Amino acid sequence: MGKKIVIALGGNALGKNLPEQMEAVKKTAAAIADLIEDHHEVVIVHGNGPQVGMIQNAMTELKRSDPDKYDHVPLSVCVALSQGYIGYDLQNSLKEELLDRGIKKDCATVLTQVEVDLNDPAFDNPTKPIGSFMTKEEADALAASQGCKVVEDSGRGYRQVVASPKPKSIVELDTIRSLMESDHIVIACGGGGIPVYHTTEHHLKGAAAVIDKDFAAECLAEALDADLLIILTAVEKVAIHFGKPDEEWLSDLTPAEAKKYIDAGEFAPGSMLPKVEAAVKFAESGKGRKALITLLEKARDGIGGKTGTLVHE
Amino acid sequence: MGKKIVIALGGNALGKNLPEQMEAVKKTAAAIADLIEDHHEVVIVHGNGPQVGMIQNAMTELKRSDPDKYDHVPLSVCVALSQGYIGYDLQNSLKEELLDRGIKKDCATVLTQVEVDLNDPAFDNPTKPIGSFMTKEEADALAASQGCKVVEDSGRGYRQVVASPKPKSIVELDTIRSLMESDHIVIACGGGGIPVYHTTEHHLKGAAAVIDKDFAAECLAEALDADLLIILTAVEKVAIHFGKPDEEWLSDLTPAEAKKYIDAGEFAPGSMLPKVEAAVKFAESGKGRKALITLLEKARDGIGGKTGTLVHE
Repeated sequence: MGKKIVIALGGNALGKNLPEQMEAVKKTAAAIADLIEDHHEVVIVHGNGPQVGMIQNAMTELKRSDPDKYDHVPLSVCVALSQGYIGYDLQNSLKEELLDRGIKKDCATVLTQVEVDLNDPAFDNPTKPIGSFMTKEEADALAASQGCKVVEDSGRGYRQVVASPKPKSIVELDTIRSLMESDHIVIACGGGGIPVYHTTEHHLKGAAAVIDKDFAAECLAEALDADLLIILTAVEKVAIHFGKPDEEWLSDLTPAEAKKYIDAGEFAPGSMLPKVEAAVKFAESGKGRKALITLLEKARDGIGGKTGTLVHE
Repeated sequence: MGKKIVIALGGNALGKNLPEQMEAVKKTAAAIADLIEDHHEVVIVHGNGPQVGMIQNAMTELKRSDPDKYDHVPLSVCVALSQGYIGYDLQNSLKEELLDRGIKKDCATVLTQVEVDLNDPAFDNPTKPIGSFMTKEEADALAASQGCKVVEDSGRGYRQVVASPKPKSIVELDTIRSLMESDHIVIACGGGGIPVYHTTEHHLKGAAAVIDKDFAAECLAEALDADLLIILTAVEKVAIHFGKPDEEWLSDLTPAEAKKYIDAGEFAPGSMLPKVEAAVKFAESGKGRKALITLLEKARDGIGGKTGTLVHE
């Protein structure tokens, strides 16, 4: 009997541009197909850093080419575009790989919104730079028209900075569940999800924010009552004293141990730290829930207990 | 007992830019919510002319800004992006409108590929101009790198022209069906669908083409065994002798009558002609199948037999 697994795909699973993406998704599809072949039920969450950056830059260039004709395209809309951009490629590669192995299964991309809380402390101090460099005039115009924050970035120009709030809930959760029940492999919460918040009881508005895809995957894994959250990254295991003579690779980690290491500053912010935090949150969220951090091509071995770092009570 | 309805939304249902779209989708959502309230089962297909044009132009401007850094983004990928762009807005507006009426129903956008046939005669003579005007050098470079056709357009520069082949099948049909069975309102085949063709038994490749959204909706309506195909447009009824003193608005039309009028050149190519052709194809495809052509805000009345042009045997 297989496990219910939510996989968070890191940037290396998708590449940084279109030719890279087309190559990278083939390897990604093969690694995921291994898990399907082992009868696991799989939901895929992917990042979108380079892709949403490219889309935002394109929209900035378009507005530059004819400022009166074109509108500013908000970040939330750019995330929606990136879900189409990546999902199309990923669902296709995965379906092809499965068919090549004689497995008939539907793969679908669910355009997913993820609710955030405007009271999230992240909104008090947006720090994540996104999109193109701008002149001071362009930056001021954007800030005035969109109410967003812009900062001068190391003498190279101005950039928009946005918050990275925690996910609260997955708006299209029932859609994801319905498709899983009808035996689909679902791609959801792409780029961490389109960030939205309630302005009224029924109205959702896009937020100028990006949601970390590892936290979005964790939120989804909890909501789906998954058995396992797999966070795929560029290293096979989590290390302490990383890059030092006494470097130590960890195969097993309890939430308590992980928190001790987090407090000791063992994990790099914006890199391994959010992954370990998301893993700990999931492992603590319910009995029997485990999180695995490893390389894409080691996912199957990791589930088999042969490698990776398993975070569990 | 309600009907199973596939709706094809025309350009006026979405607006030509982001502020227009946000207003237009509210009216569109209200008109569709009327049908849900009347217990019909609804699937929505939308156009994407201005949106995919904007996205293509943005990608052209991006490449222009740094030709070495950025890749050409194929039209099929731009369609995938446009499905995210429009679906996000449409599913949100619709869900909000339904909640405001006390109706709890999930709305989901399915990233949809539509298969076309490379032997379709449309590929022999691509005529549909898309995207920005280019210089001769840019056009030649695009043609050389992408193998696409470019033409000089009335002294204003060069543009890519693409084929508009007929849809053969809906790749994500099972996904659409599964979501309908679990009581979703589904948005599918946006912009006529991402055009793809088989290069091998299992490999799908994007085509430099655009599929007419009315034909895509017709193809989907047949595959779903819908009762009714509704093609929403800018006029309340189909007319013959349109704009002439003996203009006549039609309430009922058999496929045979419609074909007679088509042969007599009564309907404008690229405008009413494909709508009437799609309506005829659906009405002829099975017993009891009907197609309605009318205004967005008259859809409910049209189903009630009060207005619109009903095409049926």
